[in-house]
Amino acid sequence: MLNTPATQKLLERRVKSLGPAYVHFYQEPVHLVKGKGVWMWDEDGRKYLDCYNNVASVGHCHPDVVEALYRQAQKLNTHTRYLHNSAVEYAEMLAETLPGEISIANLVCTGSEANDYACQIARRVTGNFGLIILNRAYHGSTTLIRELSPEIRDEAAPDYVYEIDAPNTYRGRYSGDPEAFADHHAGLVDEAIEVLKDRGHGVAALLIDSIYDSPGIFAPPPAYQQKLFAKVRAAGGLIIADEIQSGLCRLGDNYWGVMDSGVTPDIIAMGKPMGGGHPLAVTATTPAIMQEYVDRGGDYFNTFAGNPVSAEVGKAVLEVVSRDNLLANVKETSRHLLTGLNALAEKHDIIGDVRGKGFFLAVELVRDRTSKAPAGEETIRAVEWMKDNGVLVSRIGWDANIMKIRPPLVFGKHHADLALETLDAALTAL
Amino acid sequence: MLNTPATQKLLERRVKSLGPAYVHFYQEPVHLVKGKGVWMWDEDGRKYLDCYNNVASVGHCHPDVVEALYRQAQKLNTHTRYLHNSAVEYAEMLAETLPGEISIANLVCTGSEANDYACQIARRVTGNFGLIILNRAYHGSTTLIRELSPEIRDEAAPDYVYEIDAPNTYRGRYSGDPEAFADHHAGLVDEAIEVLKDRGHGVAALLIDSIYDSPGIFAPPPAYQQKLFAKVRAAGGLIIADEIQSGLCRLGDNYWGVMDSGVTPDIIAMGKPMGGGHPLAVTATTPAIMQEYVDRGGDYFNTFAGNPVSAEVGKAVLEVVSRDNLLANVKETSRHLLTGLNALAEKHDIIGDVRGKGFFLAVELVRDRTSKAPAGEETIRAVEWMKDNGVLVSRIGWDANIMKIRPPLVFGKHHADLALETLDAALTAL
Repeated sequence: MLNTPATQKLLERRVKSLGPAYVHFYQEPVHLVKGKGVWMWDEDGRKYLDCYNNVASVGHCHPDVVEALYRQAQKLNTHTRYLHNSAVEYAEMLAETLPGEISIANLVCTGSEANDYACQIARRVTGNFGLIILNRAYHGSTTLIRELSPEIRDEAAPDYVYEIDAPNTYRGRYSGDPEAFADHHAGLVDEAIEVLKDRGHGVAALLIDSIYDSPGIFAPPPAYQQKLFAKVRAAGGLIIADEIQSGLCRLGDNYWGVMDSGVTPDIIAMGKPMGGGHPLAVTATTPAIMQEYVDRGGDYFNTFAGNPVSAEVGKAVLEVVSRDNLLANVKETSRHLLTGLNALAEKHDIIGDVRGKGFFLAVELVRDRTSKAPAGEETIRAVEWMKDNGVLVSRIGWDANIMKIRPPLVFGKHHADLALETLDAALTAL
Repeated sequence: MLNTPATQKLLERRVKSLGPAYVHFYQEPVHLVKGKGVWMWDEDGRKYLDCYNNVASVGHCHPDVVEALYRQAQKLNTHTRYLHNSAVEYAEMLAETLPGEISIANLVCTGSEANDYACQIARRVTGNFGLIILNRAYHGSTTLIRELSPEIRDEAAPDYVYEIDAPNTYRGRYSGDPEAFADHHAGLVDEAIEVLKDRGHGVAALLIDSIYDSPGIFAPPPAYQQKLFAKVRAAGGLIIADEIQSGLCRLGDNYWGVMDSGVTPDIIAMGKPMGGGHPLAVTATTPAIMQEYVDRGGDYFNTFAGNPVSAEVGKAVLEVVSRDNLLANVKETSRHLLTGLNALAEKHDIIGDVRGKGFFLAVELVRDRTSKAPAGEETIRAVEWMKDNGVLVSRIGWDANIMKIRPPLVFGKHHADLALETLDAALTAL
């Protein structure tokens, strides 16, 4: 499908005004003008089923969220150096969902800020400087967080950063043996700890996703997370769970994905789904850690974050998630979707693996199930074909051969059926 | 004025849910519930004249801004990997106001992100790592930007950061001699450049405010900025103008304060006033620098930033600023305000200095005009007295003896008169 002249013109203006650093999805970008629930429309009135966007967590333009935004924006929008109900009420509502001793919410504006501030807390509280991450991770785009994001970093890591291999359940040599897998990968952290100590940095924190997205969407084996967390803590480091993508019910079993492994982190970073599109993110921790942070001279202020409009939006999102029982919807619809994807894998040899959890699923395409040769070109064609036929998904992986399915939390079984039919047709058309 | 039981209760809940890192203005915090134009109201219906807030740039809850927010939030709120008009239109409108070759706007969510990304661009484009800042500066709160913010940093600066003295027109030994002042302070940068080269970092950028806020609100002498910029450029570094506070007409002569010195930076960071309260910030630069950034492997994405809702809000703010000619209002009202402040200085010996530019003014209180002994305690009492009598200002400086007057851009002469009367009464009541 070729761009219309209007879209072509807008694309040229975009390059001129926003510059060449901006990229867009799809070979011919989609020019969207409207969203409602799990649906989006382009400028020509074409309708798309959204199987990709996690930010519009409770669906595009949810009326409760929009009205909360409008109501508060008419009243007052100011910073947290004045006293206001909204940020307090939001933090209290959020605390109800949080695991263990975590009950303090510091509000930031973006996931990058949430992770960055989490690392600042960990460094100050532990007195250590070293940070452990998983390879291929993406945690955000501030200077420090980019250093902790091998997925986008092209320079060598600074010497206070140590990357350990992320488990791969499809291609790794331990893929068939969960126990050996957990042992081997958790063992890697011993070296990380030792090296960071030798370099004089010690371990401030392990920053870790609750589902490994960038390496190809792998749900961590609980034993692995448990061993890893214990080792880092024994070395004096804190655990920062990056729940920017996996959080707020997306994985279907718990509000926060890290809870699926039966472990509690020290700090949780939240972002994308929290404001339903509005820039709202959170760094949450325990009272003890926050007190220690302050006792050691830490402070916190963010001009925009915690303003009453953002807080009311956050409250509205949490209310919808709870009232409409979206956690249960994710669990049920996801089971339906996974059953359908596994059935498609029976039919299409090109599907090498179906994996993931909740509404965070991967379909890995390969040219051959034995050699597992990545079918990158075919994945690109399938994703474009689906877009041209009204279903939005995306693709990830070094070989761009992993289809990513990550719909809004309000995605239902009939939406799943349409997505499955379209995927079936796309693979048939290859 | 003591807190009401309701306020006291909210304060306790706030400490429990947001934690001890949050601080508030005033000894007894103000519990605000409503804002309109230059006015704010507390929970008991008391009305305050806002002489402090720069974020509500076009006035609290400006109807055009609120309606733009609501209109777009009902339609679509998504990211820049799809094509959409709004971010492009916003960037184009903004470009009309920008100096020199600067015409590319990359959208971020906070001033901290704007400065952080500006440093990333400068480092990649120059291939250098060193950063020069003015002492006592505050540029934001990401890990890197905190390192560049001596005002809040309690650790030693990393070796890639070099601080030079900020000019002080009231207390410095060159305060009476602008030429010698510019020569001396611009000379300090020679050492900065040499040291950063010796350490193997070179100079990536000078990150500099267009009015020196944290040291006490000093408008830079043009000759100083000119000399400084030229020296840093000769050393291969870029100039990042931090316009997060001084930008968008606040200084009264130009849209961007840096233009007052007759110089053009390479990158401009914008933040606070841009969204009228909504989290909207910008890193702007030239096409040549952005192309070089991309050619050297740079990329850019921010999940929330550039979404159509933020962009429409930004457009509405720019439209109000232009339509209502707020630049002229700042210039005129500021002249009126400065005349009044200087008249108060004739009357009250405690006023040691009145300075600043546009709607970014300082009234420095001293116990003695010869010794210039800071009157910190009196300043605190005056600021609290003014709050109790319906006028919001703040105080800065190591000795907390500098009253900061920084109202919304829509502040008029009659508002200035009320602020002046109240300040007069506060100083009389001391």
